[in-house]
Amino acid sequence: MDLSVEKGAKGFEFKVKDMSQADFGRLEIDLAEVEMPGLMSCRTEFGPSQPLKGARVTGSLHMTIQTAVLIETLTALGAEVRWCSCNIFSTQDHAAAAIARDSAAVFAWKGENLQEYWWCTERALDWGPGGGPDLIVDDGGDATLLIHEGVKAEEAYAKDGTLPDPTSSDNPEFQIVLSILRDGMKVDPKKYHKMKDRLVGVSEETTTGVHRLYQMQANGTLLFPAINVNDSVTKSKFDNLYGCRHSLPDGLMRATDVMLAGKVVVVCGYGDVGKGCAAAMKAAGSRVVVTEIDPICALQATMEGLPVLTLADVVETADIFVTTTGNKDIIMVNHMRRMKNNAIVCNIGHFDNEIDMLGLETYPGVKKITIKPQTDRWVFPETKTGIIVLAEGRLMNLGCATGHPSFVMSCSFTNQVIAQLELWKERKSGKYGKEVYVLPKHLDEKVASLHLEKLGAKLTKLTDDQAKYINVPKDGPYKPSHYRY
Amino acid sequence: MDLSVEKGAKGFEFKVKDMSQADFGRLEIDLAEVEMPGLMSCRTEFGPSQPLKGARVTGSLHMTIQTAVLIETLTALGAEVRWCSCNIFSTQDHAAAAIARDSAAVFAWKGENLQEYWWCTERALDWGPGGGPDLIVDDGGDATLLIHEGVKAEEAYAKDGTLPDPTSSDNPEFQIVLSILRDGMKVDPKKYHKMKDRLVGVSEETTTGVHRLYQMQANGTLLFPAINVNDSVTKSKFDNLYGCRHSLPDGLMRATDVMLAGKVVVVCGYGDVGKGCAAAMKAAGSRVVVTEIDPICALQATMEGLPVLTLADVVETADIFVTTTGNKDIIMVNHMRRMKNNAIVCNIGHFDNEIDMLGLETYPGVKKITIKPQTDRWVFPETKTGIIVLAEGRLMNLGCATGHPSFVMSCSFTNQVIAQLELWKERKSGKYGKEVYVLPKHLDEKVASLHLEKLGAKLTKLTDDQAKYINVPKDGPYKPSHYRY
Amino acid sequence: MDLSVEKGAKGFEFKVKDMSQADFGRLEIDLAEVEMPGLMSCRTEFGPSQPLKGARVTGSLHMTIQTAVLIETLTALGAEVRWCSCNIFSTQDHAAAAIARDSAAVFAWKGENLQEYWWCTERALDWGPGGGPDLIVDDGGDATLLIHEGVKAEEAYAKDGTLPDPTSSDNPEFQIVLSILRDGMKVDPKKYHKMKDRLVGVSEETTTGVHRLYQMQANGTLLFPAINVNDSVTKSKFDNLYGCRHSLPDGLMRATDVMLAGKVVVVCGYGDVGKGCAAAMKAAGSRVVVTEIDPICALQATMEGLPVLTLADVVETADIFVTTTGNKDIIMVNHMRRMKNNAIVCNIGHFDNEIDMLGLETYPGVKKITIKPQTDRWVFPETKTGIIVLAEGRLMNLGCATGHPSFVMSCSFTNQVIAQLELWKERKSGKYGKEVYVLPKHLDEKVASLHLEKLGAKLTKLTDDQAKYINVPKDGPYKPSHYRY
Amino acid sequence: MDLSVEKGAKGFEFKVKDMSQADFGRLEIDLAEVEMPGLMSCRTEFGPSQPLKGARVTGSLHMTIQTAVLIETLTALGAEVRWCSCNIFSTQDHAAAAIARDSAAVFAWKGENLQEYWWCTERALDWGPGGGPDLIVDDGGDATLLIHEGVKAEEAYAKDGTLPDPTSSDNPEFQIVLSILRDGMKVDPKKYHKMKDRLVGVSEETTTGVHRLYQMQANGTLLFPAINVNDSVTKSKFDNLYGCRHSLPDGLMRATDVMLAGKVVVVCGYGDVGKGCAAAMKAAGSRVVVTEIDPICALQATMEGLPVLTLADVVETADIFVTTTGNKDIIMVNHMRRMKNNAIVCNIGHFDNEIDMLGLETYPGVKKITIKPQTDRWVFPETKTGIIVLAEGRLMNLGCATGHPSFVMSCSFTNQVIAQLELWKERKSGKYGKEVYVLPKHLDEKVASLHLEKLGAKLTKLTDDQAKYINVPKDGPYKPSHYRY
Repeated sequence: MDLSVEKGAKGFEFKVKDMSQADFGRLEIDLAEVEMPGLMSCRTEFGPSQPLKGARVTGSLHMTIQTAVLIETLTALGAEVRWCSCNIFSTQDHAAAAIARDSAAVFAWKGENLQEYWWCTERALDWGPGGGPDLIVDDGGDATLLIHEGVKAEEAYAKDGTLPDPTSSDNPEFQIVLSILRDGMKVDPKKYHKMKDRLVGVSEETTTGVHRLYQMQANGTLLFPAINVNDSVTKSKFDNLYGCRHSLPDGLMRATDVMLAGKVVVVCGYGDVGKGCAAAMKAAGSRVVVTEIDPICALQATMEGLPVLTLADVVETADIFVTTTGNKDIIMVNHMRRMKNNAIVCNIGHFDNEIDMLGLETYPGVKKITIKPQTDRWVFPETKTGIIVLAEGRLMNLGCATGHPSFVMSCSFTNQVIAQLELWKERKSGKYGKEVYVLPKHLDEKVASLHLEKLGAKLTKLTDDQAKYINVPKDGPYKPSHYRY
Repeated sequence: MDLSVEKGAKGFEFKVKDMSQADFGRLEIDLAEVEMPGLMSCRTEFGPSQPLKGARVTGSLHMTIQTAVLIETLTALGAEVRWCSCNIFSTQDHAAAAIARDSAAVFAWKGENLQEYWWCTERALDWGPGGGPDLIVDDGGDATLLIHEGVKAEEAYAKDGTLPDPTSSDNPEFQIVLSILRDGMKVDPKKYHKMKDRLVGVSEETTTGVHRLYQMQANGTLLFPAINVNDSVTKSKFDNLYGCRHSLPDGLMRATDVMLAGKVVVVCGYGDVGKGCAAAMKAAGSRVVVTEIDPICALQATMEGLPVLTLADVVETADIFVTTTGNKDIIMVNHMRRMKNNAIVCNIGHFDNEIDMLGLETYPGVKKITIKPQTDRWVFPETKTGIIVLAEGRLMNLGCATGHPSFVMSCSFTNQVIAQLELWKERKSGKYGKEVYVLPKHLDEKVASLHLEKLGAKLTKLTDDQAKYINVPKDGPYKPSHYRY
Repeated sequence: MDLSVEKGAKGFEFKVKDMSQADFGRLEIDLAEVEMPGLMSCRTEFGPSQPLKGARVTGSLHMTIQTAVLIETLTALGAEVRWCSCNIFSTQDHAAAAIARDSAAVFAWKGENLQEYWWCTERALDWGPGGGPDLIVDDGGDATLLIHEGVKAEEAYAKDGTLPDPTSSDNPEFQIVLSILRDGMKVDPKKYHKMKDRLVGVSEETTTGVHRLYQMQANGTLLFPAINVNDSVTKSKFDNLYGCRHSLPDGLMRATDVMLAGKVVVVCGYGDVGKGCAAAMKAAGSRVVVTEIDPICALQATMEGLPVLTLADVVETADIFVTTTGNKDIIMVNHMRRMKNNAIVCNIGHFDNEIDMLGLETYPGVKKITIKPQTDRWVFPETKTGIIVLAEGRLMNLGCATGHPSFVMSCSFTNQVIAQLELWKERKSGKYGKEVYVLPKHLDEKVASLHLEKLGAKLTKLTDDQAKYINVPKDGPYKPSHYRY
Repeated sequence: MDLSVEKGAKGFEFKVKDMSQADFGRLEIDLAEVEMPGLMSCRTEFGPSQPLKGARVTGSLHMTIQTAVLIETLTALGAEVRWCSCNIFSTQDHAAAAIARDSAAVFAWKGENLQEYWWCTERALDWGPGGGPDLIVDDGGDATLLIHEGVKAEEAYAKDGTLPDPTSSDNPEFQIVLSILRDGMKVDPKKYHKMKDRLVGVSEETTTGVHRLYQMQANGTLLFPAINVNDSVTKSKFDNLYGCRHSLPDGLMRATDVMLAGKVVVVCGYGDVGKGCAAAMKAAGSRVVVTEIDPICALQATMEGLPVLTLADVVETADIFVTTTGNKDIIMVNHMRRMKNNAIVCNIGHFDNEIDMLGLETYPGVKKITIKPQTDRWVFPETKTGIIVLAEGRLMNLGCATGHPSFVMSCSFTNQVIAQLELWKERKSGKYGKEVYVLPKHLDEKVASLHLEKLGAKLTKLTDDQAKYINVPKDGPYKPSHYRY
């Protein structure tokens, strides 16, 4: 892709695959709005008062149809927005086109390479000479990481003229980050400091990004306030669980058309994502095996009738392998070459290091046959048998299908909107320091409430007497903070 | 599409969408073979003796990747093959291209109009001056119907010169059939008589086609022997049930990306197809409502925790409607205009008359917005709300997704191969008259056996003593013919 | 138990455990009536015309609360009734007491020994000097067997004075049957001939009994007409499947209180009973393994996500074993001594020869510890570990719990009533010969209909046009006879 | 029951139903030990060092077989124990007999009245002149309550001679508590002060008791340290959820034998207990309706396909009602009299005020018919129809069945043992103040670990590199404290 910024009729900068898909994108956005009552309710409740007026929001989050509804909710509340995807395969090109044409700056297309990916991230953060964004909507933490690495590099440079050195890392992706920082330094050696100074805060979407933030908080290196949206109940217990229950079979079906009934499926990790995956596969008639490190999650799996084994126990007999751990080095090339012919290997965790793609790519004599984009068969020279890897080891539900459906993303994204509103409202109050926060329970409950009517659900109301008896306010919050749902 | 027959490098006639997709088709056929142990086992067992040598087979059955493996099994057993799809939306164009290039004559593409559809059917039956096919593989019975209607028309013509009159029917599709017959009559007024005389028999795939055959048998109008493959247990209790359990959510997801959890889904009909659909939706977290005419099937639904109601009870509150009845006039336009905004309406039964598409298309002021092929939103003028109709009311799993997965189709198609072998082997023995037959139970059990190893299943063997005690042969068949599984 | 016949206030002969439980039995019968709409509807429809007036009915069928409602339906229709249980552990003593006091002659108590069991069967058949019953309601076929063996013995005796010789069999139970016949011969050497001559027919309840009948029909030894109630859809697809889904966990819980979640449960046999058992255990969070001889049933299990293995594969690792096969010698003592400590072994098939109780009882050094009635721990001398056997290898759901619940038994028993009515009505018409019959489909559908309203189900009605299109009568029957549901 | 304390052969005081059941109890305790690996592992690990030597433990917790294993684990670790049940119907008399004979003082029988209940509680707390217990194992908080009320009463008395006045409360049970305190005051007006002074702490088992403790903590009235065992993940996410999934159908079946399939079941409350109940009923083929006040829990229900409605919506059409809320006044007499004939009403929450038993008992003209103990039919005078109330509105799984199975109770009770060990070990360190604590996560994970092997589960081990990457210790704890599982 030619990396130049274009500008649309309404003046939004963009780099997308194909602007002619904007109409198609708009039609699907219209459908999605009906399925996203939380976001639409935010527009109704907050739109008139324009509470995000004046706020520049940068988003780094899968540029899908659902995200389009999020973006247009932010703009409906007054924000200016620039957006990129947080995964090279997760953009829906028609969604990107519609937003770029109608509502915000977008830099995203399905099938970026890593160089392009980070260029897009830079563009989304690039608000011109006046500094960076006021707010960030992050998913996985790449926008946040770039700023933190940028500030670190600038400090080193200020101290003694040291420039970032891409050869100092053996991680190819981080080498690209360092190159970008090095090249940027030559133009403006204070760019990320300015960005950091302006930044009001970030709201982070996913387990992995939140994990990074808590590590920075623990190390004292976090540069601005962060709201952990992932751990809103209405996010982690819905999007992670029910979203994956929906999108794992969807991705498997679209990528491979394989019959799920009767197959042995190994789900690595039994957190919320793993629970959703295991439930979906069991429901489809597969025999599910779970691998776990955590004895509590392992015991939960057993109570659901799922055997808990190690990968070594089943690597030669299973048909489908799904990683959901958030950890790295889960399925290694030495596992893969022992698998059955046409075993399917895929990842639904945020980062692509759960599956040893490097080991696979560099395995002597291995042959890659692309069946179709995001569906590759890798044939090993010794056995002439092959395995099928989805989305090159990246998020298979976004790479091979369209990610989570609108309704559950409405839960997650309503939390995002509320987090953005809160950060912006309190930007001068000092309420939020350089720490990680979760939204208060009454807002979590509110998000849930906004999604009940669409499904025809009717809540029971506490009487005064009952509220007093269990010692909660009549209108909630109804549970102590440690409640696990 | 320009309706002219082309010829490929290997000499097979064809009309397909895009021959450049042949390589892609071949890659997917290779994958499918691994998932179709029954068919591959037929190649191993029967290939060497070429039992179909000399047999001309015409197929009218969804031209998918799975069907490609069926076709190449028939050719591996010695047959010559000509093929068309039995549904205007069900062809996978890459499968058609691969077969047309490598193995057989093919006339099929995704998105035929009805005129094109019947032209393709004619071509598949057209074996040149020497008459028609020896054998037919039929699905829904359109090839069989054309021959029967042809013979009927020729008889009328022979009697008094009457030509088929398209205006005599108010069914637009049947008008086309009559035109074709009328036009053909001018060329050869004995064409279908010659065809019938040559024909050894047909093996029929699906409930609807079988229903037609039994009616012809009852009326004494059946012109040649027919094997009812649908009622092999390894067909109806697997393909219809587990196939639909897989492909209904697949079609819904690909067409609409809608979240299934929390939605109210109405499944009209609780036969094998309806049972599979209801199971899939329940497993996905939907609330399923069943409509039924048969009290036994209705009572089965209740035992699975499904409410049995009439369409009128739920038409205004449900989110998704699926017809599976094999009957007509199930969801009428007067139902559709009362539905919720963006309610999804689709059919997974063989014919497209379960949903009142004519009523919808001719509703005054209705507006059709095509979101993408096979996904249309119809907006009613009174309410400005719309419903989403999939695959124009035709088989949504084939129109919007890729149909049933390979493994379960291997069960069905192994029955087809066995039926074809049987008809051809007994072509002169007089074993089969002009009636409808089912395959004997030992062959049904054999089909099942061929699919167990792939799933790691191990059968228990009867001892002599046990076999004697329950009075069955040690190697089966194990059940009386009335056994219901 | 002292084997003498008593007579109650209303004149019914009986031998039961404790007549003081009659009030308790009546209370539970009252509850059951509300759950048995099919039977109650028979009383309403047929009661006024007394169609069983003059008919003597002998029943050999588990003397439970549900059976009590059946018996009182038969008497409400005019019949005289004598009853015994068809299993030594299946009587509910309060049900027996209530019936004996109020409605019919009863010979049954929980915990009969085999001698007592056959004494009870004799009593139920003993209608005094005028010969035997007109009709039999049989379950498992023991009443039918006794008559057939009796006739055979009488013929041998008539021929050459041969008396039945108990030592000619090595089956302890059959030895008892022969003793009874031998002793009876001395009193009346034509007793069973008279019985046979009077008998109009039998309606048989269960798979095993039906199997016996078909064997007799095949051998030409069947002495009177038989209606196979088991193969009414509303029996085998409901009672066998959903009844066992309910009563297997019930029996396990009452007998052992063991946690089902997390356990490995082996279900031997995947017919209707096995399907119900497997579904129940899977639903309870167990990991289910199936053993099967029939490849079709085995393939069904795989499609439900259940591994199909042999008993040898899992005998050392599984926690619970359930036999459902209707065959013999399924779990042998050599299996049992390899099982885990406190593995649970039980049978839900009709006869007690699925589990090798004889092998267990005679295993050298084995020790039996009765935890409570019907729950025994057997300790092997080598390992000092034990297994827990339920109901001494007999029907565990009736031995350890109360059998199937009323609602599903109402389906089965309504078929019984209809069968009895039919046999009696046609007693002189010659409609039924010495063969096995099933009820016509319209009666099967009627039984289902009678059970829908209780569950709030509403049927859809066919239009004339729809009925014509699918070629069925508007009011049914709706399916061809080979339809499998 | 004559309220006098007896003394057994080994010197333990007791009041139980029937000492002759001690052998039966011992047999079932032996079985339970095999199913309670966590407790048995505590005996192995801690038994030799006798860490509870010198500790007097009073328990107020359902005196079941599982509790017997807990008690004998405490005594195996060196403790002296006195025990009572925390529910009038929950004692298993054979368990009580075995413990009273062999291991500890016991005051408990099935079917206490409230006067007897509190007498038993007093006895369990009565360690003679030397003061009360060192430690309490509480379930629901009644032992804790009695001490707190006792101290409060003694303070009032010390201040101005005020005696507790039973007539000051309109709650009949609390009147009894006040009588006991009043009567005790005459004997020793410092009894509860001495008790409080000696007390090291309490470990509380259940949601309701924990709720009381947090309220006391918030009010500053908590008199001693408390460990909240309920909120260990291995308790609330196992016992509450999977325990109830097991014991709700068990209780329904034993009490009523009603067919669950096809019935409409209303589950009031969708917390952990409600989730377990709903899962069980859905799995049994019922149609489940949920009522909820909390929008998050309500949204969870919808995602599982369960309609969320109010009680008013379904009161006339549902078949079974289960309360799980922990709140009061859930099902009122005005609901009950509108229910269908023989609707079943039961409670599985800790206290009996979820169902308006008082309203029912005092309803003019209502008639109570006891079917069997804990199963009563209440007939309303207007309609002559009745409802069936289980366990008089108390915990139906303990009143009508045997409570939760051993395996899941082993998880809960291992937490209890660990909590008792911790309180006793730290009794002088000042580590615990007058607050409510939860056990640290590493102990929670340990409890889970102890239960995996029994189920054949195998954990995966983190590599050093992986542990570093996700920033957790290799051996856990693996999750942040806010993780919800």
